[in-house]
Amino acid sequence: MEYLEDYEPGSVHDYDEVVSLSAEEIVEFATAYDPQPFHVDPEAAAAGPFGGLIASGWQTAALSTRLMVKHYFPAGGSLGSPGIDALRWPKPVRPGDQLRLRVTVRSTRPSGSRPERGVLASYVEMLDAAGDTVFSCECVNLMRRQPLS
Amino acid sequence: MEYLEDYEPGSVHDYDEVVSLSAEEIVEFATAYDPQPFHVDPEAAAAGPFGGLIASGWQTAALSTRLMVKHYFPAGGSLGSPGIDALRWPKPVRPGDQLRLRVTVRSTRPSGSRPERGVLASYVEMLDAAGDTVFSCECVNLMRRQPLS
Repeated sequence: MEYLEDYEPGSVHDYDEVVSLSAEEIVEFATAYDPQPFHVDPEAAAAGPFGGLIASGWQTAALSTRLMVKHYFPAGGSLGSPGIDALRWPKPVRPGDQLRLRVTVRSTRPSGSRPERGVLASYVEMLDAAGDTVFSCECVNLMRRQPLS
Repeated sequence: MEYLEDYEPGSVHDYDEVVSLSAEEIVEFATAYDPQPFHVDPEAAAAGPFGGLIASGWQTAALSTRLMVKHYFPAGGSLGSPGIDALRWPKPVRPGDQLRLRVTVRSTRPSGSRPERGVLASYVEMLDAAGDTVFSCECVNLMRRQPLS
């Protein structure tokens, strides 16, 4: 998993690493970036629309990237992302929820303008212990291509 | 700006507040969530695809939410977001870049299932000092509706 050519369209990558967020981590992140009552105030959150504290969607999204950088781009082949589509948060993430990453390779194609680069499209999911998707998105990454030998 | 009815489709909301990220804030965020060389290592970043350190796209996205919660949802009328589409980062964000928020109301509609709620669609942009868009997305928020008197 280093170059564009190492990603097989249709392949599904389930990673075993489990991550979770504590109430303190949820509040700390949201205090800086998403200070809505259901993200930063456990008491208000209990009386709010989710019946308790939930993580900012950006924090769950960013957690998926932490796992992707480690497992899906282990050799640093990604050169950044021009965009992401269809971010969804179908189920709230609560303190202690055990989350893991699944990535499906959608497609790969060479760059039209820069032959040493390519475009990798991936469907990214974070799953909880019940196997339910708590976050998903359609992600595009610019990738290094395998050097010609 | 408290209830769904307070958002006028087509209206554009430019906010004066300017925010920026220091190199330390960029590295700290990315070390936790997006540890790619161009986000966490100034030396490697200088030799990398962006010619210097740039912020994780999630950090810029989350910054836009900080400003939205403060200015666009000042009365806490948002009940969360089921999803966001078309996230784009057309220009890298570098340390010290002066960023501000612009939000355009796309549409409003009552919820089909819960009459006390509605759905607000907004186009969100972060602009730099040159007026260039560094981040944009199409955001959906569930909103409280004005109570019947």
